[in-house]
Amino acid sequence: MIVRDRKDILGTEREVKGDGWTSRRLLLKKDGMGFSFHETIIPAKAELRLWYKNHLEAVYCVAGNGTIEDLASGETHQIHDGVIYALNNNDRHILRGGTEDMRLICAFNPPVTGRETHDSEGSYELIEEE
Amino acid sequence: MIVRDRKDILGTEREVKGDGWTSRRLLLKKDGMGFSFHETIIPAKAELRLWYKNHLEAVYCVAGNGTIEDLASGETHQIHDGVIYALNNNDRHILRGGTEDMRLICAFNPPVTGRETHDSEGSYELIEEE
Repeated sequence: MIVRDRKDILGTEREVKGDGWTSRRLLLKKDGMGFSFHETIIPAKAELRLWYKNHLEAVYCVAGNGTIEDLASGETHQIHDGVIYALNNNDRHILRGGTEDMRLICAFNPPVTGRETHDSEGSYELIEEE
Repeated sequence: MIVRDRKDILGTEREVKGDGWTSRRLLLKKDGMGFSFHETIIPAKAELRLWYKNHLEAVYCVAGNGTIEDLASGETHQIHDGVIYALNNNDRHILRGGTEDMRLICAFNPPVTGRETHDSEGSYELIEEE
């Protein structure tokens, strides 16, 4: 059994910050669950263009608000506490912060190793590790 | 892209209630993510003896409090906002509600189909479906 407290992750290599996002990597590939599990904070008014070509991602909002624009359909969906979106088709999208910081709980399949960075397309590369 | 609002799940077959728990099944096997994704509410003072022999489960607390007892080690861990536990060894455990209802965000691998019930050992059987 793994038990981990977010307070012990803050400021370590498991907390990664970029322009418009902070992600706490609660479970990574090496934890052996077959998915990775993250808490991501999107500040109000942030805008992120993302395309996880190599990963399926589910994102559940538990606080704050924002929107997601599906670049295939052109539709924009409201995000608030209780809304989940799942990128089951590696969907290209724009995530926008709203009027309050969004707290998002995320799972990735295949699991993120922790060594990925967003590339110029907003994607994570696939990394193999032992 | 799948977008789902919890308010549209409440009271449907995706909201399942048992003795000491309520689970909203936000993503199931048929959603094709390779994991299932759930929001589970454990009322204050509830006690659940669980053993997911066939599934790995990660559980992240975003509100409320309680404890988890690891029946292999005998250790009890406090659960509160920001604590994750991962049953990476199909760990037998007792989950106990605390002084406030716990709001838990959970992922299962392999994904739950939605037709499982807890058996007498607190396990979910494995169900194959097309």
